[in-house]
Amino acid sequence: MSFRHGLRLLYSQLSLFSRELNRPWCRYVSNSLALSSEKRASDFNSFVARTNTCGELHSAHVGQEVTLCGWIQYQRQGLFLVLRDFQGLTQIIIPQDEAHSHVKKVLYDAPVESVVRVTGTVTSRPPGQKNPRMPTGDIEVKVKTAEVLNSCKKLPFEIKDFIKKSEALRMQYRYLDLRSFQMQHNLRLRSQMVMKMREYLCNLHGFVDVETPTLFKRTPGGAKEFVVPSREPGRFYCLPQSPQQFKQLLMVGGLDRYFQVARCYRDEGSKPDRQPEFTQIDIEMSFVDQAGIQRLIEDLLQYSWPNERGPITTPFPSMSYAEALAEYGTDKPDTRFGMKIIDISDVLRSVEIGFVQNAVNKPQGTVKAICIPQGARHLQNKDFESLKESAKSQFNQEVLHLIMKPYESLKSPLSKFLSEEQQSELIQALKVQADDVVLLVAGEHEKVCLVLGNMRLESANLLESRGLVLRDPTAFHFLWVVDFPLFLHKEENPAELESAHHPFTAPHPSDTSLLYSEPAKVRSQHYDLVLNGSEIGGGSIRIHNAEQQRFVLETVLKEDPELLSHLLEALKCGAPPHGGIALGLDRLICLVAGAPSIRDVIAFPKSFKGRDLMSNAPDYITPEELEPYHIQVAWPAAAAEANKN
Amino acid sequence: MSFRHGLRLLYSQLSLFSRELNRPWCRYVSNSLALSSEKRASDFNSFVARTNTCGELHSAHVGQEVTLCGWIQYQRQGLFLVLRDFQGLTQIIIPQDEAHSHVKKVLYDAPVESVVRVTGTVTSRPPGQKNPRMPTGDIEVKVKTAEVLNSCKKLPFEIKDFIKKSEALRMQYRYLDLRSFQMQHNLRLRSQMVMKMREYLCNLHGFVDVETPTLFKRTPGGAKEFVVPSREPGRFYCLPQSPQQFKQLLMVGGLDRYFQVARCYRDEGSKPDRQPEFTQIDIEMSFVDQAGIQRLIEDLLQYSWPNERGPITTPFPSMSYAEALAEYGTDKPDTRFGMKIIDISDVLRSVEIGFVQNAVNKPQGTVKAICIPQGARHLQNKDFESLKESAKSQFNQEVLHLIMKPYESLKSPLSKFLSEEQQSELIQALKVQADDVVLLVAGEHEKVCLVLGNMRLESANLLESRGLVLRDPTAFHFLWVVDFPLFLHKEENPAELESAHHPFTAPHPSDTSLLYSEPAKVRSQHYDLVLNGSEIGGGSIRIHNAEQQRFVLETVLKEDPELLSHLLEALKCGAPPHGGIALGLDRLICLVAGAPSIRDVIAFPKSFKGRDLMSNAPDYITPEELEPYHIQVAWPAAAAEANKN
Repeated sequence: MSFRHGLRLLYSQLSLFSRELNRPWCRYVSNSLALSSEKRASDFNSFVARTNTCGELHSAHVGQEVTLCGWIQYQRQGLFLVLRDFQGLTQIIIPQDEAHSHVKKVLYDAPVESVVRVTGTVTSRPPGQKNPRMPTGDIEVKVKTAEVLNSCKKLPFEIKDFIKKSEALRMQYRYLDLRSFQMQHNLRLRSQMVMKMREYLCNLHGFVDVETPTLFKRTPGGAKEFVVPSREPGRFYCLPQSPQQFKQLLMVGGLDRYFQVARCYRDEGSKPDRQPEFTQIDIEMSFVDQAGIQRLIEDLLQYSWPNERGPITTPFPSMSYAEALAEYGTDKPDTRFGMKIIDISDVLRSVEIGFVQNAVNKPQGTVKAICIPQGARHLQNKDFESLKESAKSQFNQEVLHLIMKPYESLKSPLSKFLSEEQQSELIQALKVQADDVVLLVAGEHEKVCLVLGNMRLESANLLESRGLVLRDPTAFHFLWVVDFPLFLHKEENPAELESAHHPFTAPHPSDTSLLYSEPAKVRSQHYDLVLNGSEIGGGSIRIHNAEQQRFVLETVLKEDPELLSHLLEALKCGAPPHGGIALGLDRLICLVAGAPSIRDVIAFPKSFKGRDLMSNAPDYITPEELEPYHIQVAWPAAAAEANKN
Repeated sequence: MSFRHGLRLLYSQLSLFSRELNRPWCRYVSNSLALSSEKRASDFNSFVARTNTCGELHSAHVGQEVTLCGWIQYQRQGLFLVLRDFQGLTQIIIPQDEAHSHVKKVLYDAPVESVVRVTGTVTSRPPGQKNPRMPTGDIEVKVKTAEVLNSCKKLPFEIKDFIKKSEALRMQYRYLDLRSFQMQHNLRLRSQMVMKMREYLCNLHGFVDVETPTLFKRTPGGAKEFVVPSREPGRFYCLPQSPQQFKQLLMVGGLDRYFQVARCYRDEGSKPDRQPEFTQIDIEMSFVDQAGIQRLIEDLLQYSWPNERGPITTPFPSMSYAEALAEYGTDKPDTRFGMKIIDISDVLRSVEIGFVQNAVNKPQGTVKAICIPQGARHLQNKDFESLKESAKSQFNQEVLHLIMKPYESLKSPLSKFLSEEQQSELIQALKVQADDVVLLVAGEHEKVCLVLGNMRLESANLLESRGLVLRDPTAFHFLWVVDFPLFLHKEENPAELESAHHPFTAPHPSDTSLLYSEPAKVRSQHYDLVLNGSEIGGGSIRIHNAEQQRFVLETVLKEDPELLSHLLEALKCGAPPHGGIALGLDRLICLVAGAPSIRDVIAFPKSFKGRDLMSNAPDYITPEELEPYHIQVAWPAAAAEANKN
């Protein structure tokens, strides 16, 4: 029985936070993720008035006089109360004798969630009243003096109901939400995992933690950058999306190995589970290749991984972008479960069905399928209809579903066009068993893959909503995705190319010559790190040759190289070969903590509309306050009208 | 002979960076500040192509085949070259035999500052050619293969002249400036000292590293906050000057002990040695008092202090604001030297001199002086005139100077008004000796102190410019300044009060009742940490009582409490007593490194006008790019005119 587990049980016993403990992710979190540095030698009682925290007293302390500070979690008829702090709960016995009537009155009158300091003696709980499931369950503290340090007003809701309230309410009263077990846990987990990463990088491998500016200039194509007006008329800083240019310039400056836990900014308007400011573990090294960065990151994660999440195995598997697309229909495959995409073009090539022939006879034409194991048992016709509807609305693509009957034949309008041999070939290719369901799509390769990748995840969601577990929440499947294309055709104008990631990415060594002839075919030295189907990091080997960088900017991307003249100039001045990576810290911690949203691993997150619901930021400010910045609000007509009235 | 010292000597031998090494601070820095974590177990060669750095080979490596990557520091007639990386320099012997003619050509042709990789064998230097003052001075590397990884163009200036160039040029080519010994050293020192602080706080004392938002809302009186337009018309975020509100809310949220290496923003327009973004070590604790925070900071600095800077002694001395003003004429006394202010009102009270009588008869009226030891020897009449002129122009205050003659009498127009006894009393009070100079000021107490505090520093500057050392650059004098006033009279309207620091500062426990009767007389629980005359930190115990906070905001400061309604609400919900501090990291590292400017401990600083001279930020952006933010530039008439043409 660990401390954390005990704490959870105690919370549970007290019927507080009961709802949150029933949520699957929380049950999972509470599975005793003991916090490693707490286990070591941290002194939580240095420099303060208490002698102990509310989580650490046990039978060895019996007889000691202690002073505790904390919040009243629960108080019962002036007999006892439960005192809470960040580390746990302690049962406090209120004296009933006349000599201590003042103490009794103070504690009896103090509302729940008031802050008190008590001094008393640690005593053994009477026989039969010990609670072995609670770290402090052997003892109680017989209080002698008590002081209310701050009284709590009647809260707008009871703490125990708090989690049931809307997320908006949690955000508005974030300082109360932070008192919850899971927020305390998540923020401490985050702090400690980052600390381990720093030890690894800084102490073990000689990385230099360098702070780079956040007041910078607009980068080419930086449409998502917040602007910050300066006192020089018409001139603006921008808040950068990453320290990309700076970390490369540090390599030119000979820093050799750089890292930073970097605040980054991206103005994406309203997007769920995105934050306008976010944090990345930002890394850059000189004289390194792709494999070097990959080994570093594997080692780093292994070193900083919480013990309680089980060991992780390195090296992580690797997959090319082309494979990921072909097998999983995405560049971030969740490899915790199967249902891979299978190409059945060869099986169906000779079958005289219009839509199949239409597909296979076109360039890049193909027929592919995924198999939902036992789909016929768990899913109903309306599920298949909803899957098809989704493919239609999102991709404008038809999907056919086939059900494998117990007697080894396929139930589908398609079946009648298939010979027995073809049916059997199909069954073999798809490894279909009785009650499996096949989703089949014909069309152009990339689109077919994307549709089936989507169907795969939606089917998994459906199956899990019926109680099956496809994606083990305690499993961590890391995956490198590599060999991305260097450029993509622009959606709005396919004749033009844009960077698949950013313009500093180096071409794949095997494809360098193609850069000057067929840039669209060039693979890059970009790599993504995927965990359980989420992209948690990405990086690349960078271009270190000024001429190549200028060619990419000017000739391939048609960008104005003037905006990056400082970088081009730097590359001419003895820039070492270099590469790096950035890990999305919020997402990574979210996955490690098993939290449902990145907002649960950020102390003061913004709402999905980018608002701070506690302080009501962003807020109106006066024209006078804008004057020093030489800007004025350009009110949209409607707003201006409303403003007048 | 330490590594660092050896490196400096080698740089010096090579006639590079010669100017910087002659600057006093650099001589001081180079005094072997070995970097502790480098001394430990850092593996600088993990994950990369080299086998060793250019700073680590010595006689024990003789016979080994090694691969080094670095910059060509110097190359001589195709015979040898010196290769440099972040860790040091290694001498490379270029093969002269025909079989290696290609290697010779590659290295001979490569311009200085090009990046090369060489592989070769470590050999002992021939007898007589060893350099005991250089860490790698016993060996050289006989190269077998060489590759130019990136060629360096002809630089706009030679690296050896670089430091002589203007600071503007250093900023424009910051990536070259970063290759200098002192920038490499300062950035690594900063990284390592911060890492030690993190270990202390996070691992040893259970602090939680919490990231707080930088997109926040305007704080009352936040005139120096940058604004960031949002996509909601008329609504702006602000970049906060510190995480003050968030760290207090974290305490309300039960986090107990918080720290963050926090990026902060302050728009002060053009100010020398200030940066629009800066970093503070931000700390907050619950259930702590002033002494607790002070002990924590002393311990923290002692733990993270570089060994090579000598031990620091704790506890630091402490002085009230009133004492600091009276003795040093400032709230940040440089206690490395004397020349304290001495009150001579009592000596002169009965002397019939108009300006003295004028002063002593007024409330707060006083006559004070400082004594410049041996001033008559080192300073000339024009120096005294310039000191007086400075007092006149800055403070509109007359200063009288008296010179102590060798025969124990004062040379001054004042002397004739003094009886022999009075002269002797004065000499005794001021402890004047022959050739000392006394600067005497009469007037209102605070002003007199400020003037003399200023004269004290200006005199010290003058004396040091004549070669005397008053302020030992290797000494570190820490000082707590405490018992500040809680409020100050506003300069523009002395009938109104403003916070001396910020509105969350708690009153001194002895003065709490005064808050409601005579707020101007209340001392605060604010404390400043001063090092060698620079303020390097400040903090306070905060108000945790909602009613008291509202009284301060509404009644004393006449601020609209609505802007802080979230904080007032939080204080009602069981806020623990709490307090904290912030250390100015840039300034602290600057003092520890002995650098002349904080720009020398920041990788990419802004100019004093807030510009990034490398990338030319802030920069113009198009009206289209401002559209999503519903703002437009309000061109000043002149700028608009210029823009038209």
